[in-house]
Amino acid sequence: MTVMTAAMLEQFIADEFPQALHLGCRIDHVDDSSITVSMTAKDRHLRPGGTVSGPTMMELCDATMYYLLLAQIGPVALSVTTNLNISFLRKPVPGVLTVRGNLLKLGKTLATGELSIFSEGGGGPVAHATVTYAIPPIKS
Amino acid sequence: MTVMTAAMLEQFIADEFPQALHLGCRIDHVDDSSITVSMTAKDRHLRPGGTVSGPTMMELCDATMYYLLLAQIGPVALSVTTNLNISFLRKPVPGVLTVRGNLLKLGKTLATGELSIFSEGGGGPVAHATVTYAIPPIKS
Amino acid sequence: MTVMTAAMLEQFIADEFPQALHLGCRIDHVDDSSITVSMTAKDRHLRPGGTVSGPTMMELCDATMYYLLLAQIGPVALSVTTNLNISFLRKPVPGVLTVRGNLLKLGKTLATGELSIFSEGGGGPVAHATVTYAIPPIKS
Amino acid sequence: MTVMTAAMLEQFIADEFPQALHLGCRIDHVDDSSITVSMTAKDRHLRPGGTVSGPTMMELCDATMYYLLLAQIGPVALSVTTNLNISFLRKPVPGVLTVRGNLLKLGKTLATGELSIFSEGGGGPVAHATVTYAIPPIKS
Repeated sequence: MTVMTAAMLEQFIADEFPQALHLGCRIDHVDDSSITVSMTAKDRHLRPGGTVSGPTMMELCDATMYYLLLAQIGPVALSVTTNLNISFLRKPVPGVLTVRGNLLKLGKTLATGELSIFSEGGGGPVAHATVTYAIPPIKS
Repeated sequence: MTVMTAAMLEQFIADEFPQALHLGCRIDHVDDSSITVSMTAKDRHLRPGGTVSGPTMMELCDATMYYLLLAQIGPVALSVTTNLNISFLRKPVPGVLTVRGNLLKLGKTLATGELSIFSEGGGGPVAHATVTYAIPPIKS
Repeated sequence: MTVMTAAMLEQFIADEFPQALHLGCRIDHVDDSSITVSMTAKDRHLRPGGTVSGPTMMELCDATMYYLLLAQIGPVALSVTTNLNISFLRKPVPGVLTVRGNLLKLGKTLATGELSIFSEGGGGPVAHATVTYAIPPIKS
Repeated sequence: MTVMTAAMLEQFIADEFPQALHLGCRIDHVDDSSITVSMTAKDRHLRPGGTVSGPTMMELCDATMYYLLLAQIGPVALSVTTNLNISFLRKPVPGVLTVRGNLLKLGKTLATGELSIFSEGGGGPVAHATVTYAIPPIKS
């Protein structure tokens, strides 16, 4: 069971994580091992030629893993990314991007997930990422 | 549809890829987007303490992605690994390791897959890897 | 010998790569195997608490590797990132970030570099990245 | 200042890390931020065609980072690899491989380094890796 629902996460983002608001993410689903997030790419997310930029996809994966982790542990501590590895596989078309993330490990100090981004219009994933967050020790 | 079956892959390994024989892999299943391979860790694969060594798991992921690629394109060309990223998540117990790999992209020059290793006795994955192979151009 | 100087790269960015302008990068040095780029982190690059955001550092590494590649091959073709791996090591302080990149391999179809970001005020690198670009075939 | 010299590390490997002995590594130099290790590739490290195998190079990077870490913290605790990312850049020739590693960060719980492998006969690096180890907490 998660400790934060999709609605609680979206409220948290609005209140405490304003630098992610430009992505315009919607948390479609989150449970104790997976998450689905969607965003509609706007002009500011595009490269010349109309494809979604690589940095937008990196930021989307990083943010989605953060939400998946927060759903498990709550907004109690400042977790930080320690490693992000991303492979760009296909050119996304403009429009809706959907990210599906799976929690691979939730440890005491590290949490790791793998995520795939899919583009409107089908086909295989446009990008795949593995992201690790460090969870700071709980102070008692 | 694959161009090589599990049996054809095992024959290819025995004939042409002797340095992988020490892993003792069995190809349980392969299709046009996924593969399952199992191996029984022996003394030479263990670290002091009885856990399977990291290099054994790296080699297992690298080899499994190679078999998944060969199943699609056949043994026509010498593909080489260009990038391997692996996260070690849990300590595997000695015994059977099972790898499940998914093909993320099969392009003309690059193929990328993601793989998870599971240990006998259950629980989440003990390791997760993303592997990219370069496919040499076909000479006509 | 490079085919584009620092000044030519900055002109190219202004003309053809407007989505990177928000970083405000200055190309301090570029030669046939290395590059140094600096940027002054502004409010839009910061996280609450005043540290430079992870996505800003990812974008900075991705852009710097692109400039290092362009310096070698010129603005003749649309290269795209295929893989980016970044480790976040220390919290940067606000102010000037300096990236030093080294070209590890310039092949016909792939180019790989490694980059370290340093923060004003000294100490070890705040982040380290390895970035691979695919170079599209030259059409004759 | 390191707490283990090259000679102490080689003795430790002989006594406590027998699964790495097959690499036949010699620790040429180690200090508080870098290490140089060399090995002579033997038949068991080669692929058909005579090039050094990818798994041999992965194991070499993993082991070299382990020695660099042990030199700093001593053989007091069981550190384990959490992430290894390797790019294969050029085909090594058989003969001596030299690895140069730099410590990027030595934290309380994580240590990260970057390593390049060079092959006899010159040219750029044949492989580049980034490796992170988790350092277990010291029990008092």
